[in-house]
Amino acid sequence: MSKTLAVSPLALPLPELPVVGGVRFATAEAGIRYRGRTDVLLADFAPGTTVAGVFTRNKCPGAPITWCRDILPRGSARGLLVNAGNANVFNGASGAAAVRASAVAAARALTCTAEEIFLASTGVIGEPMPAEKITSVTDGLAARLSPDGWRAAASAIMTTDTFPKAATRTTMIGSTSVRISGIAKGSGMIAPDMATMLAFVVTDAAIPAPMLQTMLVQAIEPTFNCITVDSDTSTSDTVLLFATGSAGNAPIAHTKDLKAFRLALLGVLHDLAQMVIRDGEGARKLIEITVTGAVSRRSARRVGLAIANSPLVKTAVAGEDANWGRIVMAVGKAGEPAERDRLAVAVGGVWMAREGRVVDGYQEAPVVTHMRGSEIKIAVDLGMGRGSAVVWGCDLTHGYIDINGSYRS
Amino acid sequence: MSKTLAVSPLALPLPELPVVGGVRFATAEAGIRYRGRTDVLLADFAPGTTVAGVFTRNKCPGAPITWCRDILPRGSARGLLVNAGNANVFNGASGAAAVRASAVAAARALTCTAEEIFLASTGVIGEPMPAEKITSVTDGLAARLSPDGWRAAASAIMTTDTFPKAATRTTMIGSTSVRISGIAKGSGMIAPDMATMLAFVVTDAAIPAPMLQTMLVQAIEPTFNCITVDSDTSTSDTVLLFATGSAGNAPIAHTKDLKAFRLALLGVLHDLAQMVIRDGEGARKLIEITVTGAVSRRSARRVGLAIANSPLVKTAVAGEDANWGRIVMAVGKAGEPAERDRLAVAVGGVWMAREGRVVDGYQEAPVVTHMRGSEIKIAVDLGMGRGSAVVWGCDLTHGYIDINGSYRS
Repeated sequence: MSKTLAVSPLALPLPELPVVGGVRFATAEAGIRYRGRTDVLLADFAPGTTVAGVFTRNKCPGAPITWCRDILPRGSARGLLVNAGNANVFNGASGAAAVRASAVAAARALTCTAEEIFLASTGVIGEPMPAEKITSVTDGLAARLSPDGWRAAASAIMTTDTFPKAATRTTMIGSTSVRISGIAKGSGMIAPDMATMLAFVVTDAAIPAPMLQTMLVQAIEPTFNCITVDSDTSTSDTVLLFATGSAGNAPIAHTKDLKAFRLALLGVLHDLAQMVIRDGEGARKLIEITVTGAVSRRSARRVGLAIANSPLVKTAVAGEDANWGRIVMAVGKAGEPAERDRLAVAVGGVWMAREGRVVDGYQEAPVVTHMRGSEIKIAVDLGMGRGSAVVWGCDLTHGYIDINGSYRS
Repeated sequence: MSKTLAVSPLALPLPELPVVGGVRFATAEAGIRYRGRTDVLLADFAPGTTVAGVFTRNKCPGAPITWCRDILPRGSARGLLVNAGNANVFNGASGAAAVRASAVAAARALTCTAEEIFLASTGVIGEPMPAEKITSVTDGLAARLSPDGWRAAASAIMTTDTFPKAATRTTMIGSTSVRISGIAKGSGMIAPDMATMLAFVVTDAAIPAPMLQTMLVQAIEPTFNCITVDSDTSTSDTVLLFATGSAGNAPIAHTKDLKAFRLALLGVLHDLAQMVIRDGEGARKLIEITVTGAVSRRSARRVGLAIANSPLVKTAVAGEDANWGRIVMAVGKAGEPAERDRLAVAVGGVWMAREGRVVDGYQEAPVVTHMRGSEIKIAVDLGMGRGSAVVWGCDLTHGYIDINGSYRS
C-alpha cells in the first residue's frame, strides 16, 4: 500500500515481551508488495514443540490454510513462516506450489521436514504469489534467528494495521513458572467465524498437542470469535499456538493442573483480540456490547454481533448519537428469541428503554457525555433467559471507506 | 430532518400515473417532525376492496405493524393512513393507543370501521407518537380526496428518500383491462426479510383476498426480498396490496386467468424495489449480482446477499476497484455450499476468475471501464448445481456515513 495510515486513536502500546524459551525469530524485507519495511517472519521452535490451530470457516480459504490443516494432525512444529502483502488466496495450483516451495525452503534452512513448517499469508487476494521472493530469504533469516525478536515479528506481519499487537502472561503449571506470549495482526475483514485474523502464540510449557488444541478452541470462543470490525470473514484467518516445552514442567497429570494456564491463555487471546478491534479500519470508538437475558450464550452472542455489525448502529456511534432505536432494530433483526415488550437497552450504564418503551424521566445528558468518549458501552437485556455474552466492535467512519475504497491503489 | 439531501445520481423519474378506479388520495402537513412538507397520507378505497400484506420479520416491530397483522385476516380495506417522521416503534402501550386513535379518526372521516383502516408509520424509533397531530387532520384529508393524488402520495411518505417512487402497469384479466399502480419509500435500514420499506400498491381488479395474498407473497420474493442497502431490517417494513374491484372483471375462475396480472404485479414490485435501491443512502452505484450454479435458488440468493452486504465489496465498488478477491471472500463467508476450485467470478461480463484462480491472460482494462459506470454487474457461478438468483445492492460511500452519523440532529 502506498499511503501511510495514521495510528488508530484507540491504539495500545506494545507490552514488554520477555524471552519465551524454545522460540527464536527473524524478519526480512522480501519486497513482496511493500517497500521499505519487513514483510516476512520466520520463527524457529525447539525440537519437541507441540502445536494447536484454528482456521477460518470461509469456504474459499487461502492455500496456506489448506497446508496447515493438512499438517496440523501431526501435532508437532519446528517452524513458522509468515508473509504480508499477498494472501495467496484463489491462486489455484500455483498457490499450492508456492506454499510447498516456501515450506521446503524453510525446512531446509531450519533442518527439519516441510511438514513441520506452518505457513500463513496475508494481503491481497487473487494475485500470483511470488514464492521466489520468500525462498530467497529463508537461509538468511535462519542465520539471524534471535529469541528477542518479538517486537520485530509483530511488525513484519502487519498489513493495514496501524500499530503492532502483542500480549504476554506468566503463570504456573504445578511448581513451574511458564510464559505465554503472542502477536496478532488484523484490522479489516474481521468477523467471527474462527480466528478472524492472524495470531501466533508461543508458550514454553510442555503440553501435548491434543490438550493444547482443546484449550485453544475453548479460548477462541469468548475472545476472537466475539469481535467484529465489518462482518467480513477473511479467507486467511489463522490462530496457531505453539508449546515448546522449554520451561520443563512435569507432564500434565490432570487437566485441572492447567487451570491457571488456561486463564493466562484466555488473557493473552483477549488482549490480542482487543488490539485487533482497536485497530479496526477507520475506528475511532471501541464498542463493547453486553447481552444478558438471552435463551443461551450462543443466542446472546448472535444478538451482540447483530448490534456490532449493524451499519446503522455503527454510524450512530460514529456520530455520537445514542440512537437506541437502532439498537432495538438490530436486536429484532438478529433472528434470535426476543420480545419487544421485555427488552431493555442501556448506553453508558444508563437504562434508556425498558419493557418496550422509553424509561420514564429518561435524561439524555449523561448518555450524551458517554457517547463523546472513545469506549462506548451498550447493554441489552432480553428478559428471556440466563444466556449472556460480551462482544466488541467499532464505529463505522469515513476512515473505513477511505481505506477500503482504495486498498489496491 | 433539518438538512436537505442531494437527489441520488441513480434516481429515476416518476412515471405517468393514471387514475386507478376505486382509490382516492389526500395529503397534509401535520408537522409530526418535518416542517414545510406533507407528512400524512390518507387513501380511501371503494367498498368491497380486498387487501393483502407482508410485514417485517424484525422481532421488534412498530405498533402499526401489530395493528395491520391483527386486521389483515378480515381481508377487506376501506382506508390507508400513513405518516412520515415518527415510526411509532418501541412506544409501549402509548404506541398502541396512538395507533387506535389514528384508526378511529380515519374511520370516522371515511365512514367505516377502525378495523378497515390500514396504518403505516416511518421515521424515528422510540419517540412518543403525537397522535393528535394526525387525528386533527383526518377530517380535512377526507374532504380533499382525489383520484389524481398519486404523485403527492409518493412524496408525503418520504423520509431520507431523495426522490419519490412509483410504478404502474396495465394488463388484462380475461377481457377486462386492469391497472396496477404503486408507491414506495425507503433508502436506509433496507435488507431483505420481508418488505424492507413501505410500499402501497393498488389495482382496480376484483380479486379475492386469499388469492391476492398468495400472489403478493410470491412477487415479494424476487423483488423486495432481493434488495439490500445496509443489511439492517427495519422494524416498520410493510407492503400492502389493495384490489378495489372497480375494473369490473368477471370473478376469477382459475388462477391461470391471473397469469398476466401476476407478471404485471411482479413488474410493479420490481420497479419499486429498484427505485428503493437506487435511493440507497449515499449510493452512487447500483450493484446487480447474478448468482448461478448454486445448489438451490435460496442458496443463490443468500450468496448474492452476502456479496451485496459485504462492506469490503461495497467500498471496493465505491472506489471503482474490481477487487474480485473480496467477492471470493464474500462467497466463502456466506455459509452456503461452495467450493473454491469450482468458483467463477465476472465483473461487467468479463470472467476474471475460474476454477479457483485468475483467468489466463485476463485483461483488466474493460473491467476498469465498467467499474467507472453507475450500474455495476457482478456474476458468480458456483459450479455446484442449478440454483440461481439476482440481487441488487449499492455501494458504501461517505454519503451513507454523513446521513446516518447525524440522522437525529
